[in-house]
Amino acid sequence: MPETYNPNNILAKILRDEIPSARVYEDQHAIAFMDVMPQAPGHTLVIPRDPSRDLLDAKPETLSALVQAAQKVAQGVKKAMNADGITLMQFNGAAAGQTIFHLHFHIIPRFEGTPLKSHAGDMADMRELEDIAARIREAVKKL
Amino acid sequence: MPETYNPNNILAKILRDEIPSARVYEDQHAIAFMDVMPQAPGHTLVIPRDPSRDLLDAKPETLSALVQAAQKVAQGVKKAMNADGITLMQFNGAAAGQTIFHLHFHIIPRFEGTPLKSHAGDMADMRELEDIAARIREAVKKL
Repeated sequence: MPETYNPNNILAKILRDEIPSARVYEDQHAIAFMDVMPQAPGHTLVIPRDPSRDLLDAKPETLSALVQAAQKVAQGVKKAMNADGITLMQFNGAAAGQTIFHLHFHIIPRFEGTPLKSHAGDMADMRELEDIAARIREAVKKL
Repeated sequence: MPETYNPNNILAKILRDEIPSARVYEDQHAIAFMDVMPQAPGHTLVIPRDPSRDLLDAKPETLSALVQAAQKVAQGVKKAMNADGITLMQFNGAAAGQTIFHLHFHIIPRFEGTPLKSHAGDMADMRELEDIAARIREAVKKL
């Protein structure tokens, strides 16, 4: 039996603005904001507004809108951070490392010779995160 | 300047059937087949028929079709492999670990307590890969 969506997860609260986030993009179907435990500077999450636990239970049209938002965000993140590459990751189920059960794509800038940090790392400095968010927001706008 | 697509990459050859692959799914826009260097049993690649290097240069409609195919394949892989979770990964640029420059989504079954193997591991046994492919193909058909 598929597990049900819990509307009190952290990402749902961010969607409802009950928890603040450093947003970089939003459209009718998706929003993007900085991960507060970045695996690299510029690590951004892209999530659908529609409630889905993961890739497996999402509506196909939700996925279409999400991946198109993820493309824009990835282009903006790459430009703003002057990154050499971008890693996209998406986890389904605790065994895959999923900790928050609202579908999310990780968009992580990569730099030559720099391995990814672990995700359960330190909280980012919030002022620094806002500065990075502003740069990414501008880059996405100018795409 | 964006780099151009090289039509002689391995995935393009698989698309043209110049190199064999253990296919599990295909539709008008995407195909899926077993990764020959699996990071876990059931590791599958989903790729668009349309030539794109990565997430960044793909047409938005290519991405929509690709993510919808990836969902079906992920559902089938999870069921066929009786997996506890699914990890989706997609790399853009050598700095992100991309080695083949045709857009591809990795769909990797995850099992409680089993870390992922490195991708540059051993080649899988081809008969075993065909057996797994047959199970996934059936599971996707029955979705």
